[in-house]
Amino acid sequence: MADHGFFAGLRDPEHEHPFTEAAELEALLMVERAWLQACVETGRAPIRALEAFDAEITAGRLDRHALRRGAFRDGVVVPELVRQLRAALDEQGRFLHRGATSQDIEDTALVLRLQTWADGAVEALDAASSSLAGCAVRAPGVTTMGITRMQRALPLDWSHRIEGWQRVLVGARAALLESREAVGLVQVGGPVGDRRGDLAPVAARLAELLSLRDPGYAWHSDRRPIASFASAVSQATAALGKVGADLSLLALLGAIEVEGAGHSSSMPHKRNPVTAELLVALGRRAPMHLSAITGAMLHELERSGQAWTSERWALPELCLEMTRSAELTEQLFDQLRFRIPPPSAPGGP
Amino acid sequence: MADHGFFAGLRDPEHEHPFTEAAELEALLMVERAWLQACVETGRAPIRALEAFDAEITAGRLDRHALRRGAFRDGVVVPELVRQLRAALDEQGRFLHRGATSQDIEDTALVLRLQTWADGAVEALDAASSSLAGCAVRAPGVTTMGITRMQRALPLDWSHRIEGWQRVLVGARAALLESREAVGLVQVGGPVGDRRGDLAPVAARLAELLSLRDPGYAWHSDRRPIASFASAVSQATAALGKVGADLSLLALLGAIEVEGAGHSSSMPHKRNPVTAELLVALGRRAPMHLSAITGAMLHELERSGQAWTSERWALPELCLEMTRSAELTEQLFDQLRFRIPPPSAPGGP
Amino acid sequence: MADHGFFAGLRDPEHEHPFTEAAELEALLMVERAWLQACVETGRAPIRALEAFDAEITAGRLDRHALRRGAFRDGVVVPELVRQLRAALDEQGRFLHRGATSQDIEDTALVLRLQTWADGAVEALDAASSSLAGCAVRAPGVTTMGITRMQRALPLDWSHRIEGWQRVLVGARAALLESREAVGLVQVGGPVGDRRGDLAPVAARLAELLSLRDPGYAWHSDRRPIASFASAVSQATAALGKVGADLSLLALLGAIEVEGAGHSSSMPHKRNPVTAELLVALGRRAPMHLSAITGAMLHELERSGQAWTSERWALPELCLEMTRSAELTEQLFDQLRFRIPPPSAPGGP
Amino acid sequence: MADHGFFAGLRDPEHEHPFTEAAELEALLMVERAWLQACVETGRAPIRALEAFDAEITAGRLDRHALRRGAFRDGVVVPELVRQLRAALDEQGRFLHRGATSQDIEDTALVLRLQTWADGAVEALDAASSSLAGCAVRAPGVTTMGITRMQRALPLDWSHRIEGWQRVLVGARAALLESREAVGLVQVGGPVGDRRGDLAPVAARLAELLSLRDPGYAWHSDRRPIASFASAVSQATAALGKVGADLSLLALLGAIEVEGAGHSSSMPHKRNPVTAELLVALGRRAPMHLSAITGAMLHELERSGQAWTSERWALPELCLEMTRSAELTEQLFDQLRFRIPPPSAPGGP
Repeated sequence: MADHGFFAGLRDPEHEHPFTEAAELEALLMVERAWLQACVETGRAPIRALEAFDAEITAGRLDRHALRRGAFRDGVVVPELVRQLRAALDEQGRFLHRGATSQDIEDTALVLRLQTWADGAVEALDAASSSLAGCAVRAPGVTTMGITRMQRALPLDWSHRIEGWQRVLVGARAALLESREAVGLVQVGGPVGDRRGDLAPVAARLAELLSLRDPGYAWHSDRRPIASFASAVSQATAALGKVGADLSLLALLGAIEVEGAGHSSSMPHKRNPVTAELLVALGRRAPMHLSAITGAMLHELERSGQAWTSERWALPELCLEMTRSAELTEQLFDQLRFRIPPPSAPGGP
Repeated sequence: MADHGFFAGLRDPEHEHPFTEAAELEALLMVERAWLQACVETGRAPIRALEAFDAEITAGRLDRHALRRGAFRDGVVVPELVRQLRAALDEQGRFLHRGATSQDIEDTALVLRLQTWADGAVEALDAASSSLAGCAVRAPGVTTMGITRMQRALPLDWSHRIEGWQRVLVGARAALLESREAVGLVQVGGPVGDRRGDLAPVAARLAELLSLRDPGYAWHSDRRPIASFASAVSQATAALGKVGADLSLLALLGAIEVEGAGHSSSMPHKRNPVTAELLVALGRRAPMHLSAITGAMLHELERSGQAWTSERWALPELCLEMTRSAELTEQLFDQLRFRIPPPSAPGGP
Repeated sequence: MADHGFFAGLRDPEHEHPFTEAAELEALLMVERAWLQACVETGRAPIRALEAFDAEITAGRLDRHALRRGAFRDGVVVPELVRQLRAALDEQGRFLHRGATSQDIEDTALVLRLQTWADGAVEALDAASSSLAGCAVRAPGVTTMGITRMQRALPLDWSHRIEGWQRVLVGARAALLESREAVGLVQVGGPVGDRRGDLAPVAARLAELLSLRDPGYAWHSDRRPIASFASAVSQATAALGKVGADLSLLALLGAIEVEGAGHSSSMPHKRNPVTAELLVALGRRAPMHLSAITGAMLHELERSGQAWTSERWALPELCLEMTRSAELTEQLFDQLRFRIPPPSAPGGP
Repeated sequence: MADHGFFAGLRDPEHEHPFTEAAELEALLMVERAWLQACVETGRAPIRALEAFDAEITAGRLDRHALRRGAFRDGVVVPELVRQLRAALDEQGRFLHRGATSQDIEDTALVLRLQTWADGAVEALDAASSSLAGCAVRAPGVTTMGITRMQRALPLDWSHRIEGWQRVLVGARAALLESREAVGLVQVGGPVGDRRGDLAPVAARLAELLSLRDPGYAWHSDRRPIASFASAVSQATAALGKVGADLSLLALLGAIEVEGAGHSSSMPHKRNPVTAELLVALGRRAPMHLSAITGAMLHELERSGQAWTSERWALPELCLEMTRSAELTEQLFDQLRFRIPPPSAPGGP
C-alpha cells in the first residue's frame, strides 16, 4: 500500500523483514534446495543436481523484474522462479522441484518466515516486559480505585493491575512460542495434494532438513495451521489493546500521565495519550485480520486461488501490527507516570 | 431475535438448551450452591446455610419475571437472583455469595454450559462422521478430476477427497474436546478481581466441586479462555463450510448429485444443493462471530460491561451455528450421490 | 436462535413483526396476488384466475408445516407456496406465478417488509427525540468540560452536546426515510433474470400496484439496493452507539447519573450505566452485519444461494438491533440526570 | 506496511498519490492557507499575514523529519506543522491557524484528497468500461447457460451477462461521483467542536475558497460523511468482486478463457484465472474495511483518538483496493475470450 501519509502508526520496520520480497526469495530458495536434497537422499535425483544448485544459485543471480511479473501473472512467484532456476541449472534443472507444486514451496517457505517473525515477536514482548518491570518499580504503594462497568468500584492495589498487564505479556509470549512450534509443518502434496509419486519419504526428509514436522498429508486446502497461528497473534494484539484501553481511561481519570504524550495544536495544556490510542486501534484491527484468515479456511476443492490470496494479504498485516503493538507497549510503559496523590477534582468533566 | 420468517436455516433446536434461560438458571444455581459449599468447607459459612439452600431452593420457586427485569436493569441476572435466594434462605441468606461478584458466578456458569454444549457438538460431529463413512462406501472406484485454482488439474481418487473431509470432522472433534478441557476454569475474583478476603481456598474447592480447574487468578477482564474456545468453534464451522463449498462446486460440475435437493419454482429440472449453500453461508458467518469475541478482549479495566455484552451475544450464535453446520453435514453426506460415469457435456455452461 | 438466556438485550419484540413467518407469508401472498393481477391487466391471465385467488386464498388455509419443510428443502419457501396455491386454485392455478421465479417474489416481498420495518424505526427515533427534548430541558445552564482524545479540553456548553445527539437522531431518521424510498423496487426477472417472455409490462404494473418502482431490470444478483439500505441502518446503530459511548464516559467521570441504572451483586453503592453499555455493544455489532451484507454482493452468476442466504440472515438482525438501539436511547434519555455542580474529586480513580 | 513479498496484488501505485505524505502535506498547506485567507477576508487577520504565507511557505522548506516525529508523538502532524509554519512566518505567525484545531485542518485536507482519489477512480472505471465494450464486441451470438444456485438453469444470451457487468461499472461510477460531491464538506469546529469565537463566517468563506460546502456545524465526532463515502467505495469493490466470481466460475466451466492467465509450476496445461481470483479476494476485503470505518462512528465525546486512527488506517486501504479492482477489471476484460462452441465434456470433474 501507499505510505498513507504522515500517520505511520501502522508501520513496523523493525519486524517487517520476514514479509519482504528479499526474505520470501531467500526462503523459497532454501525450500527448493532442501526439496532437491531430499530427492537426492531418497534416490530421486543425482548428487550432481544438488552440487549444481550450490554452485550456480544465489538470490543475486535471479531476474527480480521477471520474478515480479511472473508472480503477478501466475498469482504466485514459484513458476517463474522454477523456470529461472531450471535454466541456470541447465541439464540438472529437470531434477529441481520434482513432484512439487507451487503451493508446496510457498507454504513451506511461509512457515519458515512465520517462525522468524515469531522469534522477533517474542523479543518485542520481552522488551515490553522489561519496560513494565521498570514501571512497576515506580508504582505507588497507595491504592487506586478499581473501575468496573465504567463506575468506581472499590479500592485496588496498583500491583494487581500491573500483574494483569504482566499476564498479558507473559501469556502472549507463551502462546506465540506454542504457535511457532505448532505451525512448523512442511507442505508436501504435489499438484493435487495427494502426494502422488510416493512423496512421503521426501516429506519426511524435507522436514528434518528444515527443522519442521511432517503432518503426513498435504494441508493445501486445510488451513487450520495458519488459522490457529493467526488466532494466537490476534489474541496478543487484542490483549495489548486492553492495556491501551486501560491506560486511556486512567489518563482520562487523571490517575496516570504519559510522559512526552501528544500535543494539541489549539490547547497547549493537553497531553493526549496517543500511544495508548494506537494500541486500542491496533487491537480493534486484529480481529478483522483474524476474520479474513479464518474465512480463508473456506478453501474450495484442491486449492483455492481466492482464499489463498485473502490469507496471504491478511497474515503479514496481522503479524506486523502485533509486533507494532508490542513496541508501542514497551514505549508506553517507559513513559508511564503515576500521579501521587490522586488528583483533586479539577472542576468536573 | 425474531423467528426471521420461513428461512430457519440458522436455528439449531437440538443443541440450543445450554443457551436457554432454563439452563442458565440451573447453572447459576449450581455455581451459587457450590460456592456456598466451598465456603462451608473452608470455614466461611455454617453447614446450616447449605442445608437451608438444599431445603429451600429450586429453580421453580424463583420469580422468573423479576429475574428477567433484573437482568435487563442490571445487565446481568445475578444481583436479582441473589436477592431472591437470600430472601428464601432467610437468616442463612447472608452466607450466600460471600466474597463473590456477579461475574464470578456468571462466568463459571457459562463455562459449565459451554462444556455441555461441547459434548453435544462432539456427538453431532460423530454423527456426521458416520454419515460420511456411509458415503465413502458408495464412492466410485474410478478417479475424478482434481480442481486447483478453479481449473481442472489432474485425475484424483475420490478417496483422497473423502479423507480430506474426514480430516475436517476428526480435526474439529479433537479441537473441541481440547477446548472443552481448556475452557474449564472457575472464575473467582470478587468485586474488583483481586480475590480480596483470601478467596484462594474457595477457588480451589469450587474447582473440585465443579470438576473445573483454578487458574490461580481471576480472568474477569482477561478473556483468552473464551477467545480460544471461540477460535476452535469458528474453525470447525469454517472447515465445514469448506466441505459445503466443495460440494456446491462438484454439484455445479455435475460430479455429484444431492438427493432430495431443493426445487425451483420456475425450473422443474433443477436440484439446488441447498444444504451445501447453507454450510458455506454458515462458514462465512463464523469468522464474524469470532471477530466480535476476539474484539471483546479489549475489556477495559476491572470489568467491561460493553465487551462482556458483546461476548455474551456472539458466543451462543457461534456455537449454535457450529452444531447446525455439523447437522447439515450429516444430512448432506447422507444425501450425496456420485455420478458414474461422469457427465457427458450437457451443452456448455 | 435460542433465547440466549436471561440476557435479552438483543431482542426487539416491538419491531420484529416484519421479520416473522406470519409477515413473510402475508407479504408473499400480496406479491403473488399483485403479480397475478398485473398478468390479468396485461392480458396474460384471465380475470377468473384473480377472482379464484380472492375467493380461495387466505394465509390461514395454507399448510404451514409443509411450507416450513419446503422452505428448508428448497432454500426458499416459494416453490412449496406456489404448489399449495396452484392446488387451491385448481384449473386457474396455472396462471399463478406466470413468468416469475422464487427470487422475484421473495425479494419484492422483502422490500415491502423492509418498508414496514422502516416506518416503525422512524417512530422509534421520534420517540427517542422526544425523550432527548425532555432531557434537554433538564440540562444545566452551566458549562461542562469538553473531552478530546480522552483528555479534558476546554469548557463546553451542555447544549452543544445535546445538539450533537439530536443530530444523530434527526440524521438517522432522514437517512432511513431516504433508504425506505430507495429500496422500494420490484424484483422482476424470471428464472435467469433476463425478463424473458416480455415481463416489462408486468413489472411496470406490479410496481404501481405495490407502490414501488420498476428499475427496468432484475437485481437478482445486483444487491446494491439491499447493501445501501443496510448501510443507512448500520450507520444509525453506530451513531446511537456513539451516544452510548458518550454517556458511559460521562457516567464514569461523574458528570451524569442514569436513574434506575444497574445494581451490583457485591457493591451496593454502584449504579452501572447498563443501557449505555448496550448501545455501545449494539453499535459495535452493526458494522459486522453490514460487512456480511456488503460481502453478499459477491453474488455469483445469475443467482447465488450462498450469498442470498448470508444476506437474509444478517438483514433482520441488523434492522432489529437498530430499532432496539433506538428504544434504548429513548429510555436512556428519560433516565439521564445531570449532576450539578460537577463532582468534587471522590478520591481519584 | 512491508512490501509483503512478491505477491503485490494489493498495491495500486497509479492511484496512491492522494494518500502519500507529499499529498497530505500539500493538502494541509492548502487548507491552512485558505483558513488564513478566510480570516483575512473576514477581518480576523491582516493581509500581511497572507502575503507572508505566500512569500515564505513551500512544502520544500519544511523539516520533514520533524514533521514525522511530531505526527507520531501527537497522533496528527498538524501541531508540529503549525509550529514550523509559525516560526517561518515570524511575527505574522500568530494569525495562522486562528480558532482552528488539528482535526479541522486534517479532515478538510482529507476531503480534498478523497476528491482527488475519486477523480482517478472514475477514470479507472471508465477504462474498465471501454475494455468491457471491446469484450462485448467479441461476445458470441449463441446463447450460454444461465447458472442459478450453482446449477444449470436455462439458456441465456451473453449480452444479458455483459449488460449486468456494465451496470456494475456504470453504477459504481455514478455512486462515486455522488459520494465525491457528498463528502465535499469543510470541517470547522475549533478545539471542542462548538465553533467558539464565531467561526461561522470563516467556515463559509473557507468552503468557497476550497470549492466545498459548509454543513453549518463541525462533524469532528459525527463521521457520517466518511462512512457514507466508504460505503459507496466498498460497494464498488464488492460489485467488481461479483464480476470476478462470475468469471472464475465461467473459467471453471470452460465457457471462457483468460488470455495470458496464470501458469502452474507442475501442470503446464493449466491457465489459472488469477486476475479473477484477485477481484474476488479484493471484493471480500472491502466489507472488512467498511466495517472498520463504520465502527469508527463510535467516536466518543468531542474527539476520539482511537476511532479517528481506525478510520485513517482503513480509508486509504479501502480506496486503493477499489481502484486496484477497477484496473484488474480493465485487464480482465481485455484478456477475456469466449469459447465457441462451448466445450464438449472433457471427462467430468
